[in-house]
Amino acid sequence: MSAWSERKLIEKISKGSKGKQPGVLLSIGDDCCELATGSSSLISTDTLVESVHFDLTFHPPYSLGRKSIAVNLSDIAAMGGVPRFVLLSLCLPEDLKQEWINQWLEGAFSMLGEFDCSLVGGDTVKGRQLVLGITVLGEALPCGAVYRSGASEGDTIWVSGILGAAGAGLALLNHEKKHSGSVDFSSYRSLCAAHLDPTPQVFLGQELARSGYVTAMQDISDGLATDLAHLCRASGVRAEIESDAFPMTRETSAAADFLGVEVEDLLLRAGEDYQLVFTVQAGAEKKFIAFMEQQKQQLTRVGIITAGNGVFLQKQSGTTEISFQGYEH
Amino acid sequence: MSAWSERKLIEKISKGSKGKQPGVLLSIGDDCCELATGSSSLISTDTLVESVHFDLTFHPPYSLGRKSIAVNLSDIAAMGGVPRFVLLSLCLPEDLKQEWINQWLEGAFSMLGEFDCSLVGGDTVKGRQLVLGITVLGEALPCGAVYRSGASEGDTIWVSGILGAAGAGLALLNHEKKHSGSVDFSSYRSLCAAHLDPTPQVFLGQELARSGYVTAMQDISDGLATDLAHLCRASGVRAEIESDAFPMTRETSAAADFLGVEVEDLLLRAGEDYQLVFTVQAGAEKKFIAFMEQQKQQLTRVGIITAGNGVFLQKQSGTTEISFQGYEH
Repeated sequence: MSAWSERKLIEKISKGSKGKQPGVLLSIGDDCCELATGSSSLISTDTLVESVHFDLTFHPPYSLGRKSIAVNLSDIAAMGGVPRFVLLSLCLPEDLKQEWINQWLEGAFSMLGEFDCSLVGGDTVKGRQLVLGITVLGEALPCGAVYRSGASEGDTIWVSGILGAAGAGLALLNHEKKHSGSVDFSSYRSLCAAHLDPTPQVFLGQELARSGYVTAMQDISDGLATDLAHLCRASGVRAEIESDAFPMTRETSAAADFLGVEVEDLLLRAGEDYQLVFTVQAGAEKKFIAFMEQQKQQLTRVGIITAGNGVFLQKQSGTTEISFQGYEH
Repeated sequence: MSAWSERKLIEKISKGSKGKQPGVLLSIGDDCCELATGSSSLISTDTLVESVHFDLTFHPPYSLGRKSIAVNLSDIAAMGGVPRFVLLSLCLPEDLKQEWINQWLEGAFSMLGEFDCSLVGGDTVKGRQLVLGITVLGEALPCGAVYRSGASEGDTIWVSGILGAAGAGLALLNHEKKHSGSVDFSSYRSLCAAHLDPTPQVFLGQELARSGYVTAMQDISDGLATDLAHLCRASGVRAEIESDAFPMTRETSAAADFLGVEVEDLLLRAGEDYQLVFTVQAGAEKKFIAFMEQQKQQLTRVGIITAGNGVFLQKQSGTTEISFQGYEH
């Protein structure tokens, strides 16, 4: 006997997928679901594994449910697309509590609701390890999806939001796990939230696509050093970024000091920021800034695209290659 | 260090997804892939877990790769749809051999090739247990998808192919695992193949949809007793099926004798046949048979839809309810 009931779980999932579901022609309960799709669809799948991608000892199920959906929506955000439909594939250990699953689902539904996404399918199986597989289906805006491959020499490189917060939050949570009572979390609230409950930049991604000036884009999941390297490889270009330009908060540098780690590692290599890195067409910077003026999210120019390949970090001490130095899941 | 390399794996997946890929606007290598979709899309996801859904001691990786895709294509077949795109979510233990993964992928690609499906995305993560998650995206024929919910009183109930072969094959393989050398596999080749390497009834499902006489359909994955019960519940009807009518082969009854199990359990409850169960519009039986004449696959009428609910088995000894007596994954 398992601690959770598959029937109850499927009922909860089915209930959560009822009601206002634009574009869902046939919902959960048949061999497939049937969806009204546009002429082009964006699709992505991402899997979170217990003790690899999340730590059950400090990740509350509600925020993990939100994050499980968020990291997938972030892939749609990175194309400037509109997320529409989500499928769950849950592999759950027998001893997992029904209450844990209920809270995870509530979190997942709350994130789906924030972005008007419909849960349209799912599969639940028993396994020895908790594995959360999510597939998201979306559509590009009429202006088209933004690929990784469009950056050219002279384009400027930008990031949204701040870097390093999620990495600092995770490091603090891990530190507290090892040395109970050592971390004063009241000083690091936003860092922990950045790890536990990140916000996918869906609306910002769409606005960037709409601007018409963004030539390439991707989300920052494995750290800027790795994610920008992907963009450079896809575009066949080189990125030169400046260490002084990185957007961060005092909380992050305080956390780095407290933990005794390099702040640069948090900013460039820790990953999971779920912000966007993108390039703006050479010469279009002013028009781009004017277009984005209404946008509340912080946008920071961090470098420039040049001929060549790889990602290079410019510091006062010199220039070093940092391609693919991010976190590998 | 794991026994397999994620880079190699991703390279293999990317390579296998290259070439002629109709409808793929952007393939693997960006945050999402972009697909040309019709106005309506069918989508389904299915997860296979080691030691729950398959046994690595006797399931060769090549046929498991084929089967992993096949069971998902079967969901599209059950709607009378055309499978088009597949995404993989592979959770692989560190000690899994690269060669095992290579053969699994080869099997998966061979099944995808048989049905002109494109692999368009994937995610590979490390985990303690082998978990194979597959998502398939397809489209309905212009005549529309066939749902589970369309059966009415007076419709006749049909199944494709033969029943019980996969269940018998699995029971034989399990018997041999416990009592090495006890099973003469030369007598049971087709039964073992039915378990290890089932064929999804994609083309038959389309032909049945095209006929215009099929009112409800689903695939037989959990056994006729359970799958027909799903169809009845969705349609709000009762099914009466006749024990004497079930299509089977002598191999299956011989296996049942050898194993000391009830042949009825294999036919109705063992599951994994991946055949189709469907209902034909009341009064349209002759026209349906005429339409399907060109079709080579065996089709057998096994009962009739009446008012009420549940699935009832008629035997010489009387009538008993068998709803949801199938295998629960």
